[in-house]
Amino acid sequence: MANEKNNIPIKIYLSEAELPKQWYNVKADMKEQHAPFLNPATLKPVTFEELCGIFITELVKQELNETDRYIDIPEEVLNFYKMVRPSPLVRATFLEKALGTPAKIYYKFEGNNTSGSHKLNSAIAQAYYAKEQGLTSITTETGAGQWGTALAMACSFFDIKLDVFMVKGSAMQKPDRVEVMKTYGAEVTPSPSMVTNVGRKISEEKPGTTGSLGCAISEAIEVCATRDKCKYALGSVLDYVLLHQSIIGLEVKTACEKYGIKPDIIIGCAGGGSNLGGLIGPFVGEKIQGKNDIRIIAVEPASCPSLTRGKYAYDFGDTGKITPLLKMYTIGNGFIPSPIHAGGLRFHGMSPIISKLYADGYIEATSVGQKEVFEAASLFSRTEGILPAPESAHAIRATIIEAEKCKETGEEKTIIFGLTGTGHFDMSAYRMYNSGEMVDSILTEEDLQKGFETIPKVD
Amino acid sequence: MANEKNNIPIKIYLSEAELPKQWYNVKADMKEQHAPFLNPATLKPVTFEELCGIFITELVKQELNETDRYIDIPEEVLNFYKMVRPSPLVRATFLEKALGTPAKIYYKFEGNNTSGSHKLNSAIAQAYYAKEQGLTSITTETGAGQWGTALAMACSFFDIKLDVFMVKGSAMQKPDRVEVMKTYGAEVTPSPSMVTNVGRKISEEKPGTTGSLGCAISEAIEVCATRDKCKYALGSVLDYVLLHQSIIGLEVKTACEKYGIKPDIIIGCAGGGSNLGGLIGPFVGEKIQGKNDIRIIAVEPASCPSLTRGKYAYDFGDTGKITPLLKMYTIGNGFIPSPIHAGGLRFHGMSPIISKLYADGYIEATSVGQKEVFEAASLFSRTEGILPAPESAHAIRATIIEAEKCKETGEEKTIIFGLTGTGHFDMSAYRMYNSGEMVDSILTEEDLQKGFETIPKVD
Repeated sequence: MANEKNNIPIKIYLSEAELPKQWYNVKADMKEQHAPFLNPATLKPVTFEELCGIFITELVKQELNETDRYIDIPEEVLNFYKMVRPSPLVRATFLEKALGTPAKIYYKFEGNNTSGSHKLNSAIAQAYYAKEQGLTSITTETGAGQWGTALAMACSFFDIKLDVFMVKGSAMQKPDRVEVMKTYGAEVTPSPSMVTNVGRKISEEKPGTTGSLGCAISEAIEVCATRDKCKYALGSVLDYVLLHQSIIGLEVKTACEKYGIKPDIIIGCAGGGSNLGGLIGPFVGEKIQGKNDIRIIAVEPASCPSLTRGKYAYDFGDTGKITPLLKMYTIGNGFIPSPIHAGGLRFHGMSPIISKLYADGYIEATSVGQKEVFEAASLFSRTEGILPAPESAHAIRATIIEAEKCKETGEEKTIIFGLTGTGHFDMSAYRMYNSGEMVDSILTEEDLQKGFETIPKVD
Repeated sequence: MANEKNNIPIKIYLSEAELPKQWYNVKADMKEQHAPFLNPATLKPVTFEELCGIFITELVKQELNETDRYIDIPEEVLNFYKMVRPSPLVRATFLEKALGTPAKIYYKFEGNNTSGSHKLNSAIAQAYYAKEQGLTSITTETGAGQWGTALAMACSFFDIKLDVFMVKGSAMQKPDRVEVMKTYGAEVTPSPSMVTNVGRKISEEKPGTTGSLGCAISEAIEVCATRDKCKYALGSVLDYVLLHQSIIGLEVKTACEKYGIKPDIIIGCAGGGSNLGGLIGPFVGEKIQGKNDIRIIAVEPASCPSLTRGKYAYDFGDTGKITPLLKMYTIGNGFIPSPIHAGGLRFHGMSPIISKLYADGYIEATSVGQKEVFEAASLFSRTEGILPAPESAHAIRATIIEAEKCKETGEEKTIIFGLTGTGHFDMSAYRMYNSGEMVDSILTEEDLQKGFETIPKVD
């Protein structure tokens, strides 16, 4: 052990025996829970039965579980995990050198799989529980396409039919991403589409819209409701997704303990909050208990700043107002962000767990502009050899800012950030950056207020 | 050790300490060397000085080294390797299950890096030696784009300018692959181009041609010759490339020894022979010495079958007839294969080392059709979760054939194949397969004879 602590490899791969056998439920350690989901019609807490109308039953149980600190990972899910996990925790030695910083930078890389991101961690669990429940199909939405690809892989593995509503702007930018989903047998429909009522309504109200996650969610839920043995799957925001993603943070924690690494700062990009919640889970659990004082930073795009400029309020999870009401940081369910290139960070709201942790002061938030994000992505590509997803590059940018502060002060801080995935299907965005055509998308106070107006009055 | 042998993980990751520190030079173990390169003007063996006119000096030394069994890997190259290596040796449990075979199938996966293939192993060494020699730029060609991407990453790392001539058919199919190279600072020109004499000549003779590796090589060498402090880099075929790629086979061998795995068959796809040569290197070295009796199978596309239907003769490495003459299996330097989707397997010739080993009976060869290859790729994607490069899928197809034989006979053979890379930038080919538009490209005897006519008479 002493020997291991003195000999930290550049890439820390845990053994399969060290793969966590249970997920970590941060809610068991939270002093106060986030507010319950509300039924928008009655404004009363949504019941277990109501949630089971939309979601897979076992996942609803996990969603409502506030007491069990650890939940067993089913064996079939563990076996699948072994194909792609444990994922490496990598020391960014070449990035450190390029920055000339005394900071020690590590990244947890979740992109070593065909879906190209961490989304597979929850996708395979959701497909497994669907199969166990005897379902034959699933509907979902996808923004950047990483979640859709991951669920397509998972559904293919368990032989379940999948329909994906993909934000139209992303589907147009990434035909190859669409083709990967098709290779795994999924049906992909650009959203808003003409196959649902809500899709037709939104298309009529906002002609030429490139869509939003909120709109695609509405369409997926609408189609699901018309089918037998079908449920709707969500790849972020919800508590059960953060539960599955806790495998990221648990592996990081095991690696840190094994090699004596003590993080001062943990940084993750935040769209719906699935990666961030998973990455920080066990660390923030200990922070709540006063066992550490790690700075935790959520990074969001300046063009879709739910934490840094949003309101902490009850809002719908979708544009069509079909979902229950969630208490979260939101810029309004009617907000349609400019078609920036980090499609995975375009959700108007934020995970209720992350929102609560932010409101209670356990985590910080910051927002960064698109150009500085791609500048960071480019530097990272060249130094560390991995071409990052635009989403992940938000965390890289924030890490560089912190590392540069260390350079000024001389502090040798240890920073860990989540490298959620690769940008192999985001080359159209890189093309804009490489050709100098990329612009920052500025969110005006006026547009923000317009979004706020769509937040329902609940009090 | 006994414990390790009984507990083989699904994914075997060696530790960084187990990363080989030396490359293995199979020529030191070959009973007879392949014939020397000839100067086409004099038909005399090409001298060290002549080769140094085109190639990086240290690489020429490696090319001509027939005696040193092991050659030290420079420390800076080793440090880079640590970002992407050791690569995993994976047990294909889910593929085995889908096939219902008693065979034990393992694959060595080289795709976990942004270039998406094994090409980085040699690229980083070549860029390093270029830097050491004080060069400022490199020219090269690329077919599928994997080599070009790898060399772009390597040149960016050592701050060397890179010009890539990319087979036009591939460049058109894969704009995103081009953009990755540009992200790493490389200049990419579709070949045949109008910027070289040979490019203009070939464009004139064969209007509308989608190009070939042989043609792109000619262009890269022509541009290189006009520049100061510039050399030409090749990503396959040559002995020094196989030397660098031996890191693949050395890692496989270490993993096999550590876990008591004894391969009966080793399978690799073969275009120019770099992956195959690296994968089998240390195993074939022992086979020559009578220490094992492993079947080694080279797999090539039926549309470009240099080993299975070619002639063992002296031929040019390029269409423009600029290179020295190489004794190899060839279907003729003037052969332009149909634009099949495995751009990395479209070279008219074959590595002189592989050719010699094949001629001497140490390795077998087989060819497979495009449709069966994509069927294998699709099955592999769904079962093992990795979407393979079309090139790699040739090895998958041959592995499935052998595994099905085991199913018939009940033999529990251990098969290891090389999964050279991912197909993330090959989705246009997958699109053709998914939509049912893919056809097998049949090479007629007549077209083959036409190719043979371009082989020079050297006796």
